[in-house]
Amino acid sequence: MTINLKNFLNDKSKMSKMGEFQELEQIDGLEISSVSADLYNNGRDDLTLFYFKDAANYATVYTNSSIVSETINWNQKSNKKSIKALTINTKNANTFTGKLGLKSLDEISKNLSKILTIKESKNEDGVNETVKIKDLIFASTGVIGETFPVEKINNSLQALVDKLRKDHNKLIWVKTASAIMTTDTKPKLAYEEIHVGNKLIKIAGIAKGSGMIAPNLATMLSFIFTDADISSNILKQLLKKAVANTFNAITVDSDQSTNDMVGIFSTKKIKIGQNRVITDPIIQKFEIALKKLCLNLAKQIVVDGEGAKKFVTIKVINAKSLMSAKNIAFSIANSPLVKTAIAGEDPNWGRVIMGIGKSGEKVDKEKLVIKFGELLVAENGKISGSYDELKLKEYMQWDSVVIEINLNQGNDTFECFTCDFTHDYIDINADYRN
Amino acid sequence: MTINLKNFLNDKSKMSKMGEFQELEQIDGLEISSVSADLYNNGRDDLTLFYFKDAANYATVYTNSSIVSETINWNQKSNKKSIKALTINTKNANTFTGKLGLKSLDEISKNLSKILTIKESKNEDGVNETVKIKDLIFASTGVIGETFPVEKINNSLQALVDKLRKDHNKLIWVKTASAIMTTDTKPKLAYEEIHVGNKLIKIAGIAKGSGMIAPNLATMLSFIFTDADISSNILKQLLKKAVANTFNAITVDSDQSTNDMVGIFSTKKIKIGQNRVITDPIIQKFEIALKKLCLNLAKQIVVDGEGAKKFVTIKVINAKSLMSAKNIAFSIANSPLVKTAIAGEDPNWGRVIMGIGKSGEKVDKEKLVIKFGELLVAENGKISGSYDELKLKEYMQWDSVVIEINLNQGNDTFECFTCDFTHDYIDINADYRN
Repeated sequence: MTINLKNFLNDKSKMSKMGEFQELEQIDGLEISSVSADLYNNGRDDLTLFYFKDAANYATVYTNSSIVSETINWNQKSNKKSIKALTINTKNANTFTGKLGLKSLDEISKNLSKILTIKESKNEDGVNETVKIKDLIFASTGVIGETFPVEKINNSLQALVDKLRKDHNKLIWVKTASAIMTTDTKPKLAYEEIHVGNKLIKIAGIAKGSGMIAPNLATMLSFIFTDADISSNILKQLLKKAVANTFNAITVDSDQSTNDMVGIFSTKKIKIGQNRVITDPIIQKFEIALKKLCLNLAKQIVVDGEGAKKFVTIKVINAKSLMSAKNIAFSIANSPLVKTAIAGEDPNWGRVIMGIGKSGEKVDKEKLVIKFGELLVAENGKISGSYDELKLKEYMQWDSVVIEINLNQGNDTFECFTCDFTHDYIDINADYRN
Repeated sequence: MTINLKNFLNDKSKMSKMGEFQELEQIDGLEISSVSADLYNNGRDDLTLFYFKDAANYATVYTNSSIVSETINWNQKSNKKSIKALTINTKNANTFTGKLGLKSLDEISKNLSKILTIKESKNEDGVNETVKIKDLIFASTGVIGETFPVEKINNSLQALVDKLRKDHNKLIWVKTASAIMTTDTKPKLAYEEIHVGNKLIKIAGIAKGSGMIAPNLATMLSFIFTDADISSNILKQLLKKAVANTFNAITVDSDQSTNDMVGIFSTKKIKIGQNRVITDPIIQKFEIALKKLCLNLAKQIVVDGEGAKKFVTIKVINAKSLMSAKNIAFSIANSPLVKTAIAGEDPNWGRVIMGIGKSGEKVDKEKLVIKFGELLVAENGKISGSYDELKLKEYMQWDSVVIEINLNQGNDTFECFTCDFTHDYIDINADYRN
């Protein structure tokens, strides 16, 4: 990927000198570790644990697929209000693994709860708690249909717990974000801070996925951690809203995984006052930061899209409804013809017209205004009088392309993000399991 | 395209010795011509005329796109019961051409009706008729948004009419099918015959399109001609039914053109008795032949899909509804991940699971049975006990691959046809307008 992330990620202030990442800070109340359970047979870290000493409020959003992994099924079995730990494995999706897949998680959770209970009994502050099976949740990503490696994971749990670190500095965060990767070419991290009175609230997030694509080895996962004491109920509402315009506004190839999962976890360490509602100014400030962080991570996923050479924003404005704007935006963003034209740096706006048309949304051709960047290409039902092929060709050479569709039908807007469609996508996906 | 059509086209009996085409016969009451209006600046035929001396009953089906060409708009302006001529131009889609696009067709139809009226006055059988503007319909395929070449077409109309031939033998049919091509690498033709008593009824069809894809230069068009005297109303019903499981059951890249059009035209020369209803045995016999012909043409389009190396059948059986079967079949057939896996000859059945899941249709994982060809890959919610990777890899090397999804939920079935997704698709579409 040749794109310089700094060109379009939304917060440059925290970019590390080491590279393109923001520097993530330690979140009080969170301990982190990752180890190799040898799932890849090559020694890379593939098993990750997030442990919340004093439990965490949390909320999750899962894939809309009608076939989901046994891991997601397991999480949804008991409706937990707060949890003690989140465990993530790569290499195996635990999808289409039959009853054995679910049973494997029963076994692993039994073992992990025992090990964590022993850890708790050695607590320096003397407070002992029993960690129960229902205090645990899991995430899996990897190949569909292969037997879940329950033994290898069970054998690694003790080491995973032994390695837990409270002092997770920026390097630990990068190591952790790398441990949950599959086809990703780079780890994905984002960080935000807000001030509430004299208190500093931190939000740290990691993600994986080369798009929402490649269900075999490239599910989209993201985990976000904050020290702000926000209830699970409010977290749920905030996460749903944030995901709608960020993780749910990206597409690499229109395919959707059986394992997609986004979670947010609060260690409750920074008190912001009880019973705050969604409209509370402090919650709203948090919401803005959360959206910014999610958008940042979502964009990193698109930039790392399989074979992607260009970052593409499809902006539908003045639609008659949000649903209409969304349908049109995705119809264009998912069109192989639009995406190959962008790969070829061809300002082929006729394909954008096609994309609008095939969405099935009723539009008024005469009112439609289409721009590539700041360049007007079509209006009044035909090519623009100021259409300049040379200027458009120059524009298409940029590594970030914005296509704006003004419907002039109403006030709703939706923006989605995608990448171009290149030879490398075919190469990566043609023979992927080997 | 290396596929040998004979492997899977449904009627081998009429295959020509010259190549893979069926030999099309002359249809009484139909005259054909094509000329170069120099739309491509290279002398190839790009303007085609089908003329019905004694008018034709007819029916058409157009694209579902919410943005359609001015040509389709023009056709739909007046609800004609029968027509005298169909004119087809390539190179220019007449889409997003503003008011000028519609006005151009007014001009062309005025000129053509005059020229045809003069032709009628010279009729050997002495019957003179005035050909009116409303007796004409048109089809366009080509680039979106470019000014419609009204002058070039007007200048060629006299030559087009002068060259009309009643005695259109198999070579004329091939020439005509070639004249409506854009990105197609070969003309598409099909032929069926049925006997009604001692009468022979002929059905001849041609098509163009490298898939339903490439709206700039690869709209799907198909025109079918018969001498059977069937009313426009019955033709409409028959065409709709035939299209549903043939032209509407194929996908190359999920994109849909603004110009798609399928038409059927009856010269009324063979009388089969008046007032026949859709359930009449003769009409049903005709319907079977029509479906066979449409399926043949639809398959030829997929085989000629841009960059396609393999022909893929996605067969969803025992669904709870036709809609459910259709959604699942297209969700799999349109998945770039499934299509790239097939290109790579990788029996990656996890992606089929993904495709089923992302359709959103509720399925029972435990009941699901997936086969590649005759090879069982998954059942009882997990990989099949008889799964044999080596045998599957061998199967994937065939140029025609069948994936069967048995939902075991009901009695509905839908089969759709697609091709694989290769480097060549990217090459053809990355910089297409030049």
